[in-house]
Amino acid sequence: MAPSVESQQQQQPPVEAENTVNSTTTTTTRVEDEVTPIKSKVTVVGSGNWGSVAAKLIASNARRLSSFHDEVRMWVFEETLPTGEKLSEVINRTNENVKYLPGIKLGENVVADPDLENAVRDANMLVFVTPHQFMEGICRKIVGKIREDAEAISLIKGMEVKKEGPCMISTLISEQLGINCCVLMGANIANEIAVEKFSEATVGYRKHKEIAEKWVHIFNTSYFMVSAVQDVEGVELCGTLKNVVAIAAGFVDGLEMGNNTKAAIMRIGLREMKAFSKLLFPSVKDTTFFESCGVADLITTCLGGRNRKCAEAFARNGGKRSFDELEAEMLQGQKLQGVSTAKEVYEVLRHRGWLELFPLFSTVHEICIGRLPPSAIVEYR
Amino acid sequence: MAPSVESQQQQQPPVEAENTVNSTTTTTTRVEDEVTPIKSKVTVVGSGNWGSVAAKLIASNARRLSSFHDEVRMWVFEETLPTGEKLSEVINRTNENVKYLPGIKLGENVVADPDLENAVRDANMLVFVTPHQFMEGICRKIVGKIREDAEAISLIKGMEVKKEGPCMISTLISEQLGINCCVLMGANIANEIAVEKFSEATVGYRKHKEIAEKWVHIFNTSYFMVSAVQDVEGVELCGTLKNVVAIAAGFVDGLEMGNNTKAAIMRIGLREMKAFSKLLFPSVKDTTFFESCGVADLITTCLGGRNRKCAEAFARNGGKRSFDELEAEMLQGQKLQGVSTAKEVYEVLRHRGWLELFPLFSTVHEICIGRLPPSAIVEYR
Repeated sequence: MAPSVESQQQQQPPVEAENTVNSTTTTTTRVEDEVTPIKSKVTVVGSGNWGSVAAKLIASNARRLSSFHDEVRMWVFEETLPTGEKLSEVINRTNENVKYLPGIKLGENVVADPDLENAVRDANMLVFVTPHQFMEGICRKIVGKIREDAEAISLIKGMEVKKEGPCMISTLISEQLGINCCVLMGANIANEIAVEKFSEATVGYRKHKEIAEKWVHIFNTSYFMVSAVQDVEGVELCGTLKNVVAIAAGFVDGLEMGNNTKAAIMRIGLREMKAFSKLLFPSVKDTTFFESCGVADLITTCLGGRNRKCAEAFARNGGKRSFDELEAEMLQGQKLQGVSTAKEVYEVLRHRGWLELFPLFSTVHEICIGRLPPSAIVEYR
Repeated sequence: MAPSVESQQQQQPPVEAENTVNSTTTTTTRVEDEVTPIKSKVTVVGSGNWGSVAAKLIASNARRLSSFHDEVRMWVFEETLPTGEKLSEVINRTNENVKYLPGIKLGENVVADPDLENAVRDANMLVFVTPHQFMEGICRKIVGKIREDAEAISLIKGMEVKKEGPCMISTLISEQLGINCCVLMGANIANEIAVEKFSEATVGYRKHKEIAEKWVHIFNTSYFMVSAVQDVEGVELCGTLKNVVAIAAGFVDGLEMGNNTKAAIMRIGLREMKAFSKLLFPSVKDTTFFESCGVADLITTCLGGRNRKCAEAFARNGGKRSFDELEAEMLQGQKLQGVSTAKEVYEVLRHRGWLELFPLFSTVHEICIGRLPPSAIVEYR
């Protein structure tokens, strides 16, 4: 579908939310790019599953677009593989991240670099895609060692929500490095995008539309459709809050309530995501929740995903087995984002006296800690 | 969750869309009801699967609320059962619709009536829930034979979309009977609501909030949460257009593209539902698509439902077997709403020169008629 760029441009006014930059908008700037003297240089900070896919997407565009340097650096947290080889060396030899994205060619123009400072030094476009707990350390390490004109984007989901409010990772990056930071979120299962299955994503930007267009430009492909909205907080909060709703959806699955009830719970969850975000940041836009980062990511997360899966098991056991137990058993030691986010959100709600405004969010937490039975998720009494 | 009415009322300002009447709003009018002299009388026109569940919901409230007559009439299209008995007689004897909702007690105050004119004569609240092709005949039969102060609500999904635009069933009822008509839509699988699984619904009203509140009042229960929005067209169009998106979602399932792609297609579908509705009726509100009739009904329909199911089979066969064949085989002669709606919508788009604005809607139709392969649903070329 969407046969032509022209059609999509006409399509925008009625179909796209206002303030939306569609991938196609930027495609029209190709011509200027051809004459732009200064080429942008992109570095991906992080080389896990999603980081490697991001590098692949970016590399395919960097090769194609004259406004970007061909070479895309990817910082690799160095590891020694069972073979005794260094991960970065294997990536550069095989053009594959054999550990985190085996079987997928990243593109010859991806250069793995284990030296963080060296990897970021020449780049004016920094893509951060590491576990969120690493970000503070990374910022401390590279502050003052990046280009002054550098722009950043965060693909990191799972910011913390503290009593005083959420500490956005984009804000952390902006403040620590003194640079502007966009975010990219969406219904993005890395392995599905790696094999080029159709997907979408949303770039959230604060002020400068032309910078958002540049990010759209470097990420967008025929199978990965990116659009941008002027709403960093809304986009970033979606990526975190959806995990709380996924826990609720998992409870419904475990209770075998059917699709009808599940859809209702997902809708109430989306409504509370919207209301919570708007209370914390009045600038947040309703339209953001119609983007990939909103409704689409919520759907993906509530259909599959480990938060949903563990919550289903929790409800099947009538809450008799704790999430810690189930996590240990089902996730090989990984932690569930949703359970901790639900706790963090609950703290904010209690702290601000909003508990009663968010029956779903607060009920999810009270079920998680065993104060309420799983069935409470659908009880209006 | 949602422990108390009070909490839900506080909840409204931030959490509900503006113009939304929540069930709890009306609950607060209970006291006045107690002293209201004139009692409302409800008749349900239709006694199929959904009609019988509607009668059950209404009957439970009519018993409970002093502002309504206990008795709820349900017009039954008379049939003779294999036992030789009349359906209406069996319903009145057993308090069950043994043919369309077996095993569910409707409530002692439900009276089945095979005489249409007699069933509607005394009612000032008429609930229409028949197959949509029957509505014109029913209106002709009862016009001039209903109370002048009668109010109507339509639960009928599947209005037709003609070249000149959609002919809404609520409009048909209003014009033919000369009365006001609201609509009720949502993620409502009748059999799940019949066994009191939690669900939500949306009432769409044109002008009079107090009438919408009355409808919310008579339908809302602890397991069936109803809210109202001032947007008849938006609510009614959702109930029809979602079936086109369900066809697209089915194609994605048949192609085994995964949840990521499916979520993206559902999101694009929701966006086109919104854009199409707003182009036809500028009064349509974005917020309506966050209600149960919008995103929740879309999710239910794209997870289960016969449109999705047949479209999946169609894609698995690479489009080699026609929808007519698959329908005949899988649906015992039932017709697929989605396929015909896709054709109707396509006609409108072509007629108005909007085809390129709606790549998903138009692609669905072109796949259905074999002009494009199922894989076109995810191809941006």
